[in-house]
Amino acid sequence: MDKLYTLGHQVPTKKDFIDTADFDQSEILDIINTSRIVRMYIEKGGYLNSLFHKTLAMLFEQKSTRTRVSFETAMVQLGGHAINLAPGAIQLGAHETIEDTAVVLGRMCDMIMSRVDRHESIEALAKYARVPVINGMSDKVHPTQGIGDMITIFDHWPEGKVPNDVKVIFVGDATQVCNTLCEMVTKMGMNFVHYGPKNHKISDEWLMIGRKNVEKYGGSCSYTDNSECLRDADFIYTDVWYGLYDKETSKEEYMRDFYPKYQVNDEMMMATGNSNCKFMHCLPANRNEEVTDSVLDGPNSIAWDEAENRLTAQRGLVLYFGRVAQITLDYIKQQKEAK
Amino acid sequence: MDKLYTLGHQVPTKKDFIDTADFDQSEILDIINTSRIVRMYIEKGGYLNSLFHKTLAMLFEQKSTRTRVSFETAMVQLGGHAINLAPGAIQLGAHETIEDTAVVLGRMCDMIMSRVDRHESIEALAKYARVPVINGMSDKVHPTQGIGDMITIFDHWPEGKVPNDVKVIFVGDATQVCNTLCEMVTKMGMNFVHYGPKNHKISDEWLMIGRKNVEKYGGSCSYTDNSECLRDADFIYTDVWYGLYDKETSKEEYMRDFYPKYQVNDEMMMATGNSNCKFMHCLPANRNEEVTDSVLDGPNSIAWDEAENRLTAQRGLVLYFGRVAQITLDYIKQQKEAK
Amino acid sequence: MDKLYTLGHQVPTKKDFIDTADFDQSEILDIINTSRIVRMYIEKGGYLNSLFHKTLAMLFEQKSTRTRVSFETAMVQLGGHAINLAPGAIQLGAHETIEDTAVVLGRMCDMIMSRVDRHESIEALAKYARVPVINGMSDKVHPTQGIGDMITIFDHWPEGKVPNDVKVIFVGDATQVCNTLCEMVTKMGMNFVHYGPKNHKISDEWLMIGRKNVEKYGGSCSYTDNSECLRDADFIYTDVWYGLYDKETSKEEYMRDFYPKYQVNDEMMMATGNSNCKFMHCLPANRNEEVTDSVLDGPNSIAWDEAENRLTAQRGLVLYFGRVAQITLDYIKQQKEAK
Repeated sequence: MDKLYTLGHQVPTKKDFIDTADFDQSEILDIINTSRIVRMYIEKGGYLNSLFHKTLAMLFEQKSTRTRVSFETAMVQLGGHAINLAPGAIQLGAHETIEDTAVVLGRMCDMIMSRVDRHESIEALAKYARVPVINGMSDKVHPTQGIGDMITIFDHWPEGKVPNDVKVIFVGDATQVCNTLCEMVTKMGMNFVHYGPKNHKISDEWLMIGRKNVEKYGGSCSYTDNSECLRDADFIYTDVWYGLYDKETSKEEYMRDFYPKYQVNDEMMMATGNSNCKFMHCLPANRNEEVTDSVLDGPNSIAWDEAENRLTAQRGLVLYFGRVAQITLDYIKQQKEAK
Repeated sequence: MDKLYTLGHQVPTKKDFIDTADFDQSEILDIINTSRIVRMYIEKGGYLNSLFHKTLAMLFEQKSTRTRVSFETAMVQLGGHAINLAPGAIQLGAHETIEDTAVVLGRMCDMIMSRVDRHESIEALAKYARVPVINGMSDKVHPTQGIGDMITIFDHWPEGKVPNDVKVIFVGDATQVCNTLCEMVTKMGMNFVHYGPKNHKISDEWLMIGRKNVEKYGGSCSYTDNSECLRDADFIYTDVWYGLYDKETSKEEYMRDFYPKYQVNDEMMMATGNSNCKFMHCLPANRNEEVTDSVLDGPNSIAWDEAENRLTAQRGLVLYFGRVAQITLDYIKQQKEAK
Repeated sequence: MDKLYTLGHQVPTKKDFIDTADFDQSEILDIINTSRIVRMYIEKGGYLNSLFHKTLAMLFEQKSTRTRVSFETAMVQLGGHAINLAPGAIQLGAHETIEDTAVVLGRMCDMIMSRVDRHESIEALAKYARVPVINGMSDKVHPTQGIGDMITIFDHWPEGKVPNDVKVIFVGDATQVCNTLCEMVTKMGMNFVHYGPKNHKISDEWLMIGRKNVEKYGGSCSYTDNSECLRDADFIYTDVWYGLYDKETSKEEYMRDFYPKYQVNDEMMMATGNSNCKFMHCLPANRNEEVTDSVLDGPNSIAWDEAENRLTAQRGLVLYFGRVAQITLDYIKQQKEAK
């Protein structure tokens, strides 16, 4: 085989969306702006056919509601189509190596999005598929959530503030959503705090990534288990406590670690001293564990706008990487013709 | 969150299709006529793009062939797309409350269709999703089947008769299909009889609903286990005997209750004294239990036209409620702008 | 029911794609040329909408990656849509007879493609569905793979040779892919050899079919376990050893039968004496069992082009049989109107 036509890492024009940390601020802002412009255009009743006849293979190793529905809708709204490979439809590495699956899907589809058990799997897909690969969540990061979260924060921007004055607190378990939030918030020049128990603390690796962003863009990046940090927060963000993937723990265990100190309730929202402090959650929520009904359903909750912005984000992502896909196809065609 | 943008029951323009009994005769006729006009148009080779770039989320708690394929085809034929959430893809009320799932799907899709285990679930989806919700069958009713059945009856209308002279007999187990048929037949001013064993009799609640229709539109509504009722029937309708959902019974048990008296066979068709009496079945059929091959494959069977009319009905339903969805979106937009 | 509108075998205009052996050379070339022309057109940036608003029901009794993704993409690229009925979504013959399922799907969709456990099932679907049925692999044949394989052979045609001089060797277990390859290679006038152990020999039935082709078109058709046959091969093709469906065997057992003699490795490729001999595999591959990494990833492997040509083939197939579907629909319409 002529590997040039086949393997992702040998196609110089190809670009994947594996981790927001792989992109600089201007690229992230490009994706976010693309997302927001498409939303405005569609809300005004406009139709886009930029991805006419294009297919996105969605490969799920884990169940998904929001990621699945938002990507499928985004492809439809841009004139394309998403192929749903549900958990079990393809078992990565079972009857076929991940690498071979990547090569084959890259030959049949225009883009691949995958939710994987192991971050190494998404990296392998990206390395071998000749088309753009989008990470729909791994055990390490959740970059498409990160784009949607930034859009939501921009939509609900605290009036009159500059990024360096905005404070975003992630409360509870340092999930992959926490990692990506840390990266994105600091890349946008805001202040990030992980507030949680020591044995669920965000890793030093991620604090380091955040601090490198702080050097460039200002803001700050820290971890604490001291509730003092809540003061003056603009956004309180949380996620479920039960852990994901193989880190899942029993209810008894996680309640002991997190409850009641790290539950986002009215008292915690009051502790910010900011009556405009917004509440965010990537969902699904375990109501009255990590967040009370009163907060999730309360006037300061923007969790539902955040869910809707998953769709906003995916539209921008498939458009941005769809353009990359076209450039890559053109490149391969040129190489073929030059032969 | 601003609930106005979120919760179904707070959007005054929204309308759902949960039970045919929620609609008056003229609305049902609107849906049926929409369905028949779209069919005529498509049969003449016309293309419709009324639902261009619109998505219908299909949420199945139970397996389905006819409902799934007919809705998915209907959306495609009107320019839209159906997202298939197969049984297990989302477990209503498992990792997330039904209410939260409804809110999120309502933010990402233009309509929701669901086949649920419990009627309460479809009601909860309708209450919380801000987009139209269509009941793809619950343990109580099967309204989309009902629309298709009326279309089929109209397609095979007994020559020269007026509705008050037309007799429709449902034979056997009073399933949700029987309930909806009772409601629809009487709403159209025809005569409805449930002919079955006393321990599988249609509920008094449904007979009451039917009789209220009779007061308005004429016709009649009754239950009997006397085979005299078969006389002069225009349509004989049956369904499987094994019960659905948690009412499922063993073959031994149901054969004792139904066989041979309630089997639709040549003898029963003869007992109508009407050589033009048509046979209907919602399918799938348990051949040679509730109906013999000779009847199901015989010249008076319109069960296959009935199956095709599931597609006819869904096209009308998604078009009708797609229009509702657009009105609702416009309303929400106005409210947002007015703020 | 008016069977004319319903049952496949009573519609004279209908044509199915069950087995390549059902078609003469010119029809197969028509399909192949359709596939190649569509590919050229799409590669030049053209859009086709020949299957606008048409649906293909895909009914899988077995998991599939390549067949699923290639058909779904093909339908999208021609303006249509494929409905994925995953294994378990419909169990052929479980709650409903295959015949009834065929009638119903034929009433709701424009085409059916199915991967079945038993060849009889695909025959029953074809007999009862009034729309074209495409065999997506049975325990007997794999005709859509066959079309893709011929396209791949034509794409990599040995310079200056005529068909009667081209030699294709299938190495290893006589799977359904081997059967169809035997039929296609001889129908195109080339030379076919099955090289494998006696207890996994291609059946006499298939050798006979091949030899009938040889009588018409020249070339040759044989089986051997003598490695001498490898000399001057233009294409070496292999498939997994573990058997498919209920013929699956333990690794110990199949390794004893096939290893090391029938492994395609550098030594075997050298034994052809042809440095341009190409390697083919229908995939998925069990790396370093039936083929070594060095061959599958080597410069003579065209297995990835072959995978991509699954998509090339499906585009031609759905276009060709989509036209058949339209003719059939027109015929049924005429019959209805004539009544």
